Amino acid sequence: MSRIQALYRVRAPRADIERIAQALALEQSVETPLEAVRDAFVADAIVARVGSIEEHAAGVFDVRVALAEATTGGDVAQTVNMLFGNSSLHEHVELVDAVLPDTLAARFGGPRFGLAGLRERLGVHGRPLTCAALKPQGLAAARLAELCETFARGGIDVIKDDHGLADQSYSPFAERVRLCQRAVARVSRETGRRIAYAPSLVGAPRALVDQAAYAGAARVAPPLLLGKLFRLLGADAVIYPSYGGRFAYSEALCRGIADALRGPLHGMPAALPVPAGGMTVERVPELVRCYGADAMLLIGGSLLASDDLAGRTRAFADAVAETAAA
Amino acid sequence: MSRIQALYRVRAPRADIERIAQALALEQSVETPLEAVRDAFVADAIVARVGSIEEHAAGVFDVRVALAEATTGGDVAQTVNMLFGNSSLHEHVELVDAVLPDTLAARFGGPRFGLAGLRERLGVHGRPLTCAALKPQGLAAARLAELCETFARGGIDVIKDDHGLADQSYSPFAERVRLCQRAVARVSRETGRRIAYAPSLVGAPRALVDQAAYAGAARVAPPLLLGKLFRLLGADAVIYPSYGGRFAYSEALCRGIADALRGPLHGMPAALPVPAGGMTVERVPELVRCYGADAMLLIGGSLLASDDLAGRTRAFADAVAETAAA
Repeated sequence: MSRIQALYRVRAPRADIERIAQALALEQSVETPLEAVRDAFVADAIVARVGSIEEHAAGVFDVRVALAEATTGGDVAQTVNMLFGNSSLHEHVELVDAVLPDTLAARFGGPRFGLAGLRERLGVHGRPLTCAALKPQGLAAARLAELCETFARGGIDVIKDDHGLADQSYSPFAERVRLCQRAVARVSRETGRRIAYAPSLVGAPRALVDQAAYAGAARVAPPLLLGKLFRLLGADAVIYPSYGGRFAYSEALCRGIADALRGPLHGMPAALPVPAGGMTVERVPELVRCYGADAMLLIGGSLLASDDLAGRTRAFADAVAETAAA
Repeated sequence: MSRIQALYRVRAPRADIERIAQALALEQSVETPLEAVRDAFVADAIVARVGSIEEHAAGVFDVRVALAEATTGGDVAQTVNMLFGNSSLHEHVELVDAVLPDTLAARFGGPRFGLAGLRERLGVHGRPLTCAALKPQGLAAARLAELCETFARGGIDVIKDDHGLADQSYSPFAERVRLCQRAVARVSRETGRRIAYAPSLVGAPRALVDQAAYAGAARVAPPLLLGKLFRLLGADAVIYPSYGGRFAYSEALCRGIADALRGPLHGMPAALPVPAGGMTVERVPELVRCYGADAMLLIGGSLLASDDLAGRTRAFADAVAETAAA
């Protein structure tokens, strides 16, 4: 089966890079220790494979990893997940490049018009196209349309809404688009030039969930992103990487996330903190002390890595019950 | 009108922080120089206002900014845009917190079940809930259902698909959900315990666009994100922050983005690079030399800041035509 060729840049001591690269390949495919992979098909066809490791600079390595195309299920979001899912939480890892198999790329479609099609539609050849943006937001639709007309008359090829323009009360989308399009058409008629007006489309409520779920958003503070925003958007429970596991969140930060999920927020019901990521049965008492009873502990790979899954699972459940009862 | 209270942490020399904070407030509201704001309503009700500035650590400041609720249009994605849109491209800025007006928060809804509702549905009180994840991906649905049953019998409250599980050929979503739900129901019947199976839902093609459009994804290399992935997903033209403007992209990086948009990629049509962000008419010749004719130059605020918008606009158009003809 085909593989996606991903290139990661990884900061690591030279002595550790081999081990870290292998961990990266597991994190971006099966998300379990290799010991937990007991199925021959999974080991052969699904686990990501480390290709070359080259030193890019002192202590920085280019790591090539071949990801199984089958893991994407042909879905775009899942492809991103496979390219830079868990590893986007690792500060030492950057996703630098990815080459998809043609079969996978074909599912995504590519441009409809493209550079040549845009040129043709605008009738502009042999020079760069020009574009201007309608702003500031806050202006009424009629004022934006005046701006639009001015840009059009000035010779701009494409006039776009600034991305701050949404469907705001002071310039409703439908009215703005009608007036700006009319302005552009008028100038086109009078001048014979083709001019395009490009309205800004702002996503539905799902967009934030999609955006916020992406840990590449590394510079948004986790208690806000995972605690308040997810909850605002309707999350009943939020899974996040707990301290002392595979991710670099501190105990204080993790408490902050839990506090944000459970504290007062516009009178909304509290949501359930679900710390996770490299947790073990042995740590249950400590985790319960940290998070209290109003949390859900999530243990993944360390259960599966055991030879006695049933027993280990029971031990987990028992440890939680016993610690809470103590 | 109500304001969103946003808290940014900004790295800056003490002598510059006042100026930088003001720039941040403009960037997160009107996205133009203050000189371009000629409308009294916009200046009064739309431009974001800097509140307090406090030194958090040496050279790091907590900057409170009041953002106009009206700019969100009540839309979630647009709210994120207003909270951390352009500024997410600024390495020295981190979004730390945000307090929404109740009216805006009410539009987002909050949890349906919440912590208490989940407890009630699961019949678990007085202790943390437990959760385990089904993985590794690559296992057949029947094997995952066996795992699920083992977890359920072991006393786990919630058994979730690992987020690597999508709708893959080796464990199709519909089959997996049916078998896992059946396993959980069987154990529930036999034991009298309530157990939940939580399947993983992976987004539609839009998800990547939404995710990738978010510059908080600071650690994905821009030529990949803006050049290849956007194009793969059907972008006919891609706007990105050009070198020498308000953002820190280097000339080489910007060329890399343009090359990625226009170079060979699975036989797909080339897409149109649209460098933008703090561009000026004076820089047109240089930009044309850098990007060549197959690009679209986008000039925003610097046109609007001029007292002669029509003339300045024409000068832009002329400069492009003349440089290209030269």
